[in-house]
Amino acid sequence: MAEVQRQNRPKAAGQNRPAGQQGTWAGRAAAPGQQPARPAAGTPRPQHRRNYYNRPRKAAQPTEPAVSVKVMPLGGLGEVGKNITVYECQNDLVVVDCGLVFPDSDMYGVDLVIPDFTYLVQNKDRIKGVIITHGHEDHIGALPYLLKQINVPIYATRLTIGLIKNKLEEHNLLGRTKLVEITPKRKFKLGCFTVEPIHVNHSIPDSVGFAIECPAGVILCTGDFKIDYTPLSAGPTDLDTIAEYGRKGVLLLLSDSTNSERPGFTATEQKVAAGVGNLFRQADRKRIIIATFASNIYRIQQIIDLAVENGRKVAVSGRSMVGNTQMAMDLGYLHAPDGVLIDIEEINKYPPDQVVLITTGSQGEPLSALSRMASASHRQVRVGPGDFIIISANPIPGNEKMVTKVVNGLLKLGAEVIYESMYDVHVSGHACQEEQKLILTLAQPKYFMPVHGEYKHLKKHAETAAKLGIQPKNIHIGENGECLIVSRDGLSLGEPVTAGSVMVDGLGVGDVGNVVLRDRRHLSEDGLVIVVATVNNATGELLAGPDLVSRGFVYVRESEELMDEARRLVQNTFEKCRGEHVRDWNSVKTRVREALSSYIYRKTKRSPMILPILMEI
Amino acid sequence: MAEVQRQNRPKAAGQNRPAGQQGTWAGRAAAPGQQPARPAAGTPRPQHRRNYYNRPRKAAQPTEPAVSVKVMPLGGLGEVGKNITVYECQNDLVVVDCGLVFPDSDMYGVDLVIPDFTYLVQNKDRIKGVIITHGHEDHIGALPYLLKQINVPIYATRLTIGLIKNKLEEHNLLGRTKLVEITPKRKFKLGCFTVEPIHVNHSIPDSVGFAIECPAGVILCTGDFKIDYTPLSAGPTDLDTIAEYGRKGVLLLLSDSTNSERPGFTATEQKVAAGVGNLFRQADRKRIIIATFASNIYRIQQIIDLAVENGRKVAVSGRSMVGNTQMAMDLGYLHAPDGVLIDIEEINKYPPDQVVLITTGSQGEPLSALSRMASASHRQVRVGPGDFIIISANPIPGNEKMVTKVVNGLLKLGAEVIYESMYDVHVSGHACQEEQKLILTLAQPKYFMPVHGEYKHLKKHAETAAKLGIQPKNIHIGENGECLIVSRDGLSLGEPVTAGSVMVDGLGVGDVGNVVLRDRRHLSEDGLVIVVATVNNATGELLAGPDLVSRGFVYVRESEELMDEARRLVQNTFEKCRGEHVRDWNSVKTRVREALSSYIYRKTKRSPMILPILMEI
Repeated sequence: MAEVQRQNRPKAAGQNRPAGQQGTWAGRAAAPGQQPARPAAGTPRPQHRRNYYNRPRKAAQPTEPAVSVKVMPLGGLGEVGKNITVYECQNDLVVVDCGLVFPDSDMYGVDLVIPDFTYLVQNKDRIKGVIITHGHEDHIGALPYLLKQINVPIYATRLTIGLIKNKLEEHNLLGRTKLVEITPKRKFKLGCFTVEPIHVNHSIPDSVGFAIECPAGVILCTGDFKIDYTPLSAGPTDLDTIAEYGRKGVLLLLSDSTNSERPGFTATEQKVAAGVGNLFRQADRKRIIIATFASNIYRIQQIIDLAVENGRKVAVSGRSMVGNTQMAMDLGYLHAPDGVLIDIEEINKYPPDQVVLITTGSQGEPLSALSRMASASHRQVRVGPGDFIIISANPIPGNEKMVTKVVNGLLKLGAEVIYESMYDVHVSGHACQEEQKLILTLAQPKYFMPVHGEYKHLKKHAETAAKLGIQPKNIHIGENGECLIVSRDGLSLGEPVTAGSVMVDGLGVGDVGNVVLRDRRHLSEDGLVIVVATVNNATGELLAGPDLVSRGFVYVRESEELMDEARRLVQNTFEKCRGEHVRDWNSVKTRVREALSSYIYRKTKRSPMILPILMEI
Repeated sequence: MAEVQRQNRPKAAGQNRPAGQQGTWAGRAAAPGQQPARPAAGTPRPQHRRNYYNRPRKAAQPTEPAVSVKVMPLGGLGEVGKNITVYECQNDLVVVDCGLVFPDSDMYGVDLVIPDFTYLVQNKDRIKGVIITHGHEDHIGALPYLLKQINVPIYATRLTIGLIKNKLEEHNLLGRTKLVEITPKRKFKLGCFTVEPIHVNHSIPDSVGFAIECPAGVILCTGDFKIDYTPLSAGPTDLDTIAEYGRKGVLLLLSDSTNSERPGFTATEQKVAAGVGNLFRQADRKRIIIATFASNIYRIQQIIDLAVENGRKVAVSGRSMVGNTQMAMDLGYLHAPDGVLIDIEEINKYPPDQVVLITTGSQGEPLSALSRMASASHRQVRVGPGDFIIISANPIPGNEKMVTKVVNGLLKLGAEVIYESMYDVHVSGHACQEEQKLILTLAQPKYFMPVHGEYKHLKKHAETAAKLGIQPKNIHIGENGECLIVSRDGLSLGEPVTAGSVMVDGLGVGDVGNVVLRDRRHLSEDGLVIVVATVNNATGELLAGPDLVSRGFVYVRESEELMDEARRLVQNTFEKCRGEHVRDWNSVKTRVREALSSYIYRKTKRSPMILPILMEI
């Protein structure tokens, strides 16, 4: 019963709470004798104990209703990207993460997509801070856009702050933003919230999850995580702290669903070290070029270590790779003996077998350093048969074709290329099913909300939780913009809040909407035909034109006949309108558009955008 | 030495060859005693026997030079799609396959891409026929476009002819095209070529490879193939015939490289039968909806068989699925007991557990039946919690996101969805490395050219061949448009021929080229701004305008200020030109374009297409 006792003990962070809310979580403790012994982790739970996580509450406490917390995901549900969740309790707001997502292929011309900040702007005075789990774009990328609208303090670990600083500097926001460094195991207060960062493993150092205590209870957010028992540094995910919160009672768990379709455990980063080590030996007398994510500092450290071991110098290529390595060196997250790092301009001074070049472009991004090498347009690096190229990343869904293009290009230049699952050159940064089960088991949440994933990922994670005995009614598959009201008494949905996708195109934030996108899509498919004419406003007489100008429709030089006939048709339509004394120019335009559109479709089975422009004199 | 004897035996198809060319292949036979015993299949070959495939030719035969054959791939190399290869010997031409490829995502608005037929049109009178390996789009899809330009007979197996007929009917080409049915093991003559179709396993019935004999020797083309020892019908790939040609001597082997990156063997279609069978049981009382490729008649037959076994009726949905099933039934490639097949309009008359619906859309194609079900816009089918949906196909690279979208949609409607590698619901139709090795070993070609794949696939297949002992100099990684000249004396490259991609957009074939595509891309990224004005040709005075019209650039209603200022800028530019007496309208347009472009970029960091149109009076 020690466990139950501990649950009744007032929590450190809750000691200054008003008396009426003290018993909140104690109420969940089972009556003596009803609490089943905890099964060993991994033991299959018999069916009759499916309500393990929903122990009967203590006999009625006729106090006021339980305090509730609102959980409002503004992004990150039903999508992989733009993670941001708002927590609201007793008039205080805390925001976790503020990420972007890269545009879908049908978002023509859009550079990036950020969350809709309407709710945050409307409630800016109540926001106590934005707390950040780690430094990936889908968690920090939208911060500059938020900070342009409201000024709120940002709380993040050291490396994450380094990455945020780079970003704010680009947007000229650095001076005016309060950045607070946080550390695992050190709680901090934000209004009625007490936040404890919890160390987790992920593909970037200094990643944390959060235990967020408020008068309604404890919310545990894993952030992006995996469990690596033998990580390259900083130790495994802090399972002990998660277990301790679990013992004390977790109201709601939000856990990373990215790999919820994959059974088993994500392999340790050590496996990559071994795999890449073998490749270094295999490269023999060749120059090594290795592409990976610029933010994967662990991977970069491994490569530097292997280079040192093999007597090679290291150069880096690609803007983000150069920026991140420099920053990580400065902050002490990357280490290299003196003289190992060389400038990319110097690589040709060394024989091939004394060089490793670390580069961006592992996703085949068309403007990345590796893509430029593959198309023989990189300024300093010429790829040839003397190169051994390792792509140390798997293609993110949607990028396969771009990666293939780069691989083909490099192979054609004669290089040896190691890509995809040819060797153990990459492991995921996210937990698979067994890891997700471990967290669910340790955290023992009353309510569970899978986050960070497409609907299919959330669904699968919910199924995993249900298999562990969490009652389906206590598992919630959420949507962006929902307002989940959670208390020890139950889970309900409040008024939804504004949430959505705001497209950023150049300097424009939100000025590209559905109308503009629809036009871009239309233009991209069949181009356009402009009909321009000058008319006498009084008589309706054509003074100049009609002229037809087309772009993206047909190759005009080879389609003169079509365009000539189209012009005659438009002229006839104008004349008919004049004969019928149609003087409403909009009607004339409509008739021209319809006549031309149906003619063109009949002749070409295409539907270009048709833009009649009339100038009146 | 029986083997060597057989090599010296004149070949049936070669008996009427001129005397000077008789010895062609006999010349490859080793002198007695030099011919090593054939190792058992799969036995690793010791290093010192790397020249196994290049046995020393018999002592000098001082005859005329060996007859050669030209091999000209017009498509299918360095790409997956639009397979077509031309063989030319002694003035006769034979074409193998005539496929299309679906456009890359950057080919805006293009419906499909076909090979450039210039070489065939130029030599149309010498073409003896087009022989087709199987009925997939990447092998038959461009036939209608070829047949619109030249009239040549088509040779194909029964089911393939059925599929071609459907296609020609759509294009009104059926009456005027000669279609000749061919059968494995039955040789036919096309000019100096003798062709033997060889039965192979693939994901569509009636697939064949070809042994193409000509005075220069035997060319073996596998077509798309795998080796399935337990196929659902028609028996395994005809290894015996391949082996026999190998014994007699194969000059050149062209073999399918699609899966050359995958080790091992492609699993048998029986595995899918078992996997899908389990799912039928698991579906229990739910309606089953199963998506697969419309051309995979084997898979459709399996599903029908399972439906019969489980007392379910079968309906089909999707235009191509309906067309193909009907045709396959008519030709006897699909069998169903009377009363099993029902019309899709009838499915709601039966309880869910008595229905199986076979549908298109396994690749998430936006207009497919399954996509419409996922977006609740299918006319006859409403998906809900009573549905058990199986996607019996893996996403083709590039389609992952579309498939995910459909899966998410179906899950949200409450259906149970089985997709991707969750179960054994799909196997590839192409050979993996061990199968490729088997073919190489049986065919013992003098020269080898990997085909059907991106460069990386061809490269890998070439490496596999080299590991088996084929000398690297006898392995050729080709390119579209090359003219490979092959004889027993060697392999060389002749003058390249015209080859390339012709884009089809609506009725237009080839009228969309790089200019049009570049404009479409530009329009899709930033839209356009049209500047239109009417000027007095004599005085340069502005009579009307300038007016600005934009599409796909900004949402004009929210950007009035920007557009107003832009208009003023254009007006000023016109006035300046007039002040400076610039009367060359092209110069005026250029100045307007430059001024507006730099203004817009400064304000928005976007570069819309800018189209100044001046009307002169």
